[in-house]
Amino acid sequence: MIIDQLLNGLSWIGIFAFAVSGALFAAEKRMDILGYMLIAAVTAIGGGSLRDLLLGVSPVFWVREPYPMTLAMVAAVLTYFLLPLIQQRDRWILWMDAVGLSVFAVLGAEAALQQQTSAVIAVVMGVMSATFGGVLRDVLCAEMLTLMRPELYISCAVTSATVYVLLSALGVSFALAALLAFAAGFVLRALAIVYGLTLPGHRA
Amino acid sequence: MIIDQLLNGLSWIGIFAFAVSGALFAAEKRMDILGYMLIAAVTAIGGGSLRDLLLGVSPVFWVREPYPMTLAMVAAVLTYFLLPLIQQRDRWILWMDAVGLSVFAVLGAEAALQQQTSAVIAVVMGVMSATFGGVLRDVLCAEMLTLMRPELYISCAVTSATVYVLLSALGVSFALAALLAFAAGFVLRALAIVYGLTLPGHRA
Amino acid sequence: MIIDQLLNGLSWIGIFAFAVSGALFAAEKRMDILGYMLIAAVTAIGGGSLRDLLLGVSPVFWVREPYPMTLAMVAAVLTYFLLPLIQQRDRWILWMDAVGLSVFAVLGAEAALQQQTSAVIAVVMGVMSATFGGVLRDVLCAEMLTLMRPELYISCAVTSATVYVLLSALGVSFALAALLAFAAGFVLRALAIVYGLTLPGHRA
Repeated sequence: MIIDQLLNGLSWIGIFAFAVSGALFAAEKRMDILGYMLIAAVTAIGGGSLRDLLLGVSPVFWVREPYPMTLAMVAAVLTYFLLPLIQQRDRWILWMDAVGLSVFAVLGAEAALQQQTSAVIAVVMGVMSATFGGVLRDVLCAEMLTLMRPELYISCAVTSATVYVLLSALGVSFALAALLAFAAGFVLRALAIVYGLTLPGHRA
Repeated sequence: MIIDQLLNGLSWIGIFAFAVSGALFAAEKRMDILGYMLIAAVTAIGGGSLRDLLLGVSPVFWVREPYPMTLAMVAAVLTYFLLPLIQQRDRWILWMDAVGLSVFAVLGAEAALQQQTSAVIAVVMGVMSATFGGVLRDVLCAEMLTLMRPELYISCAVTSATVYVLLSALGVSFALAALLAFAAGFVLRALAIVYGLTLPGHRA
Repeated sequence: MIIDQLLNGLSWIGIFAFAVSGALFAAEKRMDILGYMLIAAVTAIGGGSLRDLLLGVSPVFWVREPYPMTLAMVAAVLTYFLLPLIQQRDRWILWMDAVGLSVFAVLGAEAALQQQTSAVIAVVMGVMSATFGGVLRDVLCAEMLTLMRPELYISCAVTSATVYVLLSALGVSFALAALLAFAAGFVLRALAIVYGLTLPGHRA
């Protein structure tokens, strides 16, 4: 089915991007190649695993299908060998993370809607799927959580998930809804990275 | 059923209290309103989600029913707007956490007993449900774990869960057992907060 | 069945070793006896719980059977009372962790193969089962992750899991495969601890 193909395509992009962000963190920590592979895998599959567990979809996606783990391993090995060519790794981490964030917000929301959850739960599931892999990566590497950065981050996951749920409710075709939702979150995150956009927080 | 109503009532109180404690942590970290909502949600539903996953109750409670997530969101938004009125936020966090701790110890033990587990497993499940939401909150906010504070904490969860399991085994009605068990854990935690009660630890 | 007995035997050893490593961490943190029990339990059952959740085996193993939790509690209480007799606790933590690491790599791979997963997924599941309990322990105790130590660690879990999957595929009897796989990972870890073996990491 074309929907399945599109979902898979998005999933490939998100897994690859998150895996690269994880492998680059492993590089920062001077880990060996198996460390790259473990952090890449955990980052890439963490959010989707949480999503499947909470929704009761069992076993989780990367146990059902071989490609996510293979893809994460390939991303880790590529990052390991191409590392000397990668400049400004901090920026790469942020941008790869931004891609994964927007992709998994859409996929998480879609997975929840497939289980007939309410719109609110679908948005929450999108946000949790989008952020959990990165949280695991940051906790394992004992880094400040990307989630806690001052510029917009959670907002971008909320945007992707909400746009997707709204467009789906309006009957927009899957492909268009997914593409627009991904783009909305990613562009917002891109603007946040480049211009340091924030929402107001209380000043205590 | 009256039992279901009581369980729901307890659950509302615990979710609200944990959500407020999470939102107040988000305030400490100067997060924006979506940060309040995410930390509140994770704190409020973390323990119950772990409980449902470990017991094989699927999907988890807040995917089956709409009120827990809605309630956590309401608590987060209220906290955000009422923040200037809240004095001594550290104390509020401790007290809200104490309410959630005692509630989820009871609910976790009850959920385990409903699945016919042994009494020991029911107590363990109560303790894990009670403490996991707070652990997630503290890890996400990179704070010292409340669990690691010197005064009695785990003991209070053990108390609530054990009292509940014992009274249930003795055939005490659900409402009375739940109320006494909640009270036992909460009062112990209150005494621990106010008087700094501790159990002896080895001095190495 | 003899296979079940051997699996159980291995499981006892791994649970006990991980529980002791957790209890010793609780000792470092000057926790009370309930703290010993909680950290011991989380370390001992964390990896196996993650394995069962991801594979869709429900409820998790220590809810189905009483011995793992009992054993972890016994290990915690023994450690608490024998603590004054234990010299060089840092070394004990490393060695108990090494035993648990190798045991759960084998058990995780075997559990995955029982669910008909591919060899790659079985190895990944072994590695995740082997490392997750220790990660939880280290995060709860706010210690540097053992996973992040410079000498070989993930490699040892990969070794045990891979040897097990290969020998199984070659039709080697369960008992021999499990024993050799455990020994391969444990010996490698022992050499890593004693001689500080590392794989090369990029020097940035």
